[in-house]
Amino acid sequence: MFFIVQMNDVSLEKLKMIKSKAYAAHSPSSPLTPFEIHRRHPGPEDVQIDILFCGVCHSDLHTARNEWANTLYPSVPGHEIVGRVVAVGDKVKGFKVGDLAGVGCMVDSCGHCHPCDEGEEQYCESGFTGTYNGPVFGGENTFGGYSQTIVVKESFVLRIQHDEKDLASVAPLLCAGITTYSPLRHWKVGPGKKVGIVGLGGLGHMGVKIAHAMGAYVVLFTTSPGKIKDGKQLGADEVCISTDPEQMAAHANQFDFILNTVAAPHNLDAYLQLLKLDGTMTLVGAPAEPHPSPNVFNLIFKRRQLAGSLIGGIRETQEMLDFCAQHGIVSDIELINMDYINTAYERMIKSDVKYRFVINMANL
Amino acid sequence: MFFIVQMNDVSLEKLKMIKSKAYAAHSPSSPLTPFEIHRRHPGPEDVQIDILFCGVCHSDLHTARNEWANTLYPSVPGHEIVGRVVAVGDKVKGFKVGDLAGVGCMVDSCGHCHPCDEGEEQYCESGFTGTYNGPVFGGENTFGGYSQTIVVKESFVLRIQHDEKDLASVAPLLCAGITTYSPLRHWKVGPGKKVGIVGLGGLGHMGVKIAHAMGAYVVLFTTSPGKIKDGKQLGADEVCISTDPEQMAAHANQFDFILNTVAAPHNLDAYLQLLKLDGTMTLVGAPAEPHPSPNVFNLIFKRRQLAGSLIGGIRETQEMLDFCAQHGIVSDIELINMDYINTAYERMIKSDVKYRFVINMANL
Repeated sequence: MFFIVQMNDVSLEKLKMIKSKAYAAHSPSSPLTPFEIHRRHPGPEDVQIDILFCGVCHSDLHTARNEWANTLYPSVPGHEIVGRVVAVGDKVKGFKVGDLAGVGCMVDSCGHCHPCDEGEEQYCESGFTGTYNGPVFGGENTFGGYSQTIVVKESFVLRIQHDEKDLASVAPLLCAGITTYSPLRHWKVGPGKKVGIVGLGGLGHMGVKIAHAMGAYVVLFTTSPGKIKDGKQLGADEVCISTDPEQMAAHANQFDFILNTVAAPHNLDAYLQLLKLDGTMTLVGAPAEPHPSPNVFNLIFKRRQLAGSLIGGIRETQEMLDFCAQHGIVSDIELINMDYINTAYERMIKSDVKYRFVINMANL
Repeated sequence: MFFIVQMNDVSLEKLKMIKSKAYAAHSPSSPLTPFEIHRRHPGPEDVQIDILFCGVCHSDLHTARNEWANTLYPSVPGHEIVGRVVAVGDKVKGFKVGDLAGVGCMVDSCGHCHPCDEGEEQYCESGFTGTYNGPVFGGENTFGGYSQTIVVKESFVLRIQHDEKDLASVAPLLCAGITTYSPLRHWKVGPGKKVGIVGLGGLGHMGVKIAHAMGAYVVLFTTSPGKIKDGKQLGADEVCISTDPEQMAAHANQFDFILNTVAAPHNLDAYLQLLKLDGTMTLVGAPAEPHPSPNVFNLIFKRRQLAGSLIGGIRETQEMLDFCAQHGIVSDIELINMDYINTAYERMIKSDVKYRFVINMANL
């Protein structure tokens, strides 16, 4: 009897939910295919957003294929979401139907730990609730932006000030943008600072644009001579070919800050040696296999620091979006349809994209 | 003709120099043996110090045995020097004959680069001149404190405010003291901060004493249950046995700062996981073989930092000596005679010393 009542409750609840088309992976080895998910009806503090564009982040691919060994299936990736508000709860004050809005990597956090109090929900001590794949450290699954519509509590919804015609190019700011903006701000990048950006991919190209807009002297490090022109057009003052020991040596002991966006294992010492006294290199990519162990002398002899940084808090994400709108910064993108996603993943693995795929969700 | 004149000049110069008994290594494999060196006559800005006590640092052993592959022979180690001023140059203002004085790891630096301007001579861009083994990165040899007397420019000589009866125990402050004090100050250790000290050797036991005196809550990490009592007596509020996963887990995500004094390769992740948001672990020991590569996720998920630190500047070394005098802090030592040095080295390798050997130079 108890079991039947429970079933009825669940079934009733399901009937009240909002159906949404989506694309999902059902196992590490299967391609993403059409799938139907359900969203809750907006509660008093919720905003419902019909998704117009969703950026394609490397984390989407890692999660769809369970490369971090924590994927809950079915998996609906996507955390670079922009769209239009179609419903708001009674208590929502910052959004009205018809507004543009964005959702990034998080849809909830505990709200009362020290990092949450500081507006650093990404470091929530209970583990924030990811926009997809649920809480980072286990818990119920959540479905991301490869879908028609999403319902999110207002405090995790971002305002978009960019012109609507740029909306597709704004989507990647919600992850690639904040992942680079946050450490650049935290380590006080600005005029008079010499800043390195390692890697010119989805993250790196945002790092170059943002660091340049912050007023720093920006050096892009890349292994590809073919990227010199692009790097300069994006805002780099110099481009250094990192496989050329002479070019690298010319930059030794000069950098205040290096943002390293490369997730593949590589020699960190080559970059640590470029930092000046008290300089910091911050990693925002996490390799599946470890980097070669850095030489401790490179840390000791100039009191250098090797750090990591994870996306950014909601307040800072809004600050980043406003900063980018003010400076005319968007992502360089290649717009695709949802059914191209599996091909897009294969091309991402080969770094064959300038610099971010964005899905046009209208064609779902 | 030219050659002969040069020889005569050198010989004349030698005649004017001060002879000093010393102990030297002549090759990586030979024990230290009695040796005669020469010190310059004090110039206008020089202070001559007759050495009373010299601490025995692990770097002495590394250098004597060429373990960092940069040793100039003959090698006279010793950079934890205390003694009495026996001569001063015309322009010396801070010292007079009869004063106690100390010399640490440096006897000169370029004096005009950015770090030197900031009083951080240890990070001199030209490489400071080591008290022994000359400039860190090559150049002429210098002879350290395993000797009767030393001549050093005033700006690299430290004032000693401790009671003279404690002088032997003050010697290790000149390296072990400043190497721990400087990072504890730089990373703002004080009341309300939870601080870890990893390892209870020459450096670690100073770290515990100094962090405690700075007002922090101090947890000592050691692999040896036999060191619990000692650790608490030295000032640790808690002692954690680092090989016990349960004890380690109880400290997860709590530390503002960890000072890691262990030079042997070990698992850094076990300690990185204990840092709270924005916490830093600073390494002051450099292993001959690299540590296992740290897991980048441990840096990213709490914006943690892995750093290094090298001794401290002269101004800060004086500040440390004054701080230690004010708080009654000295090193725990075992006093030895000079001819015991080779045995002392063997015991140091086995960590068989509480916690620093100091040589009584009066018996040289």
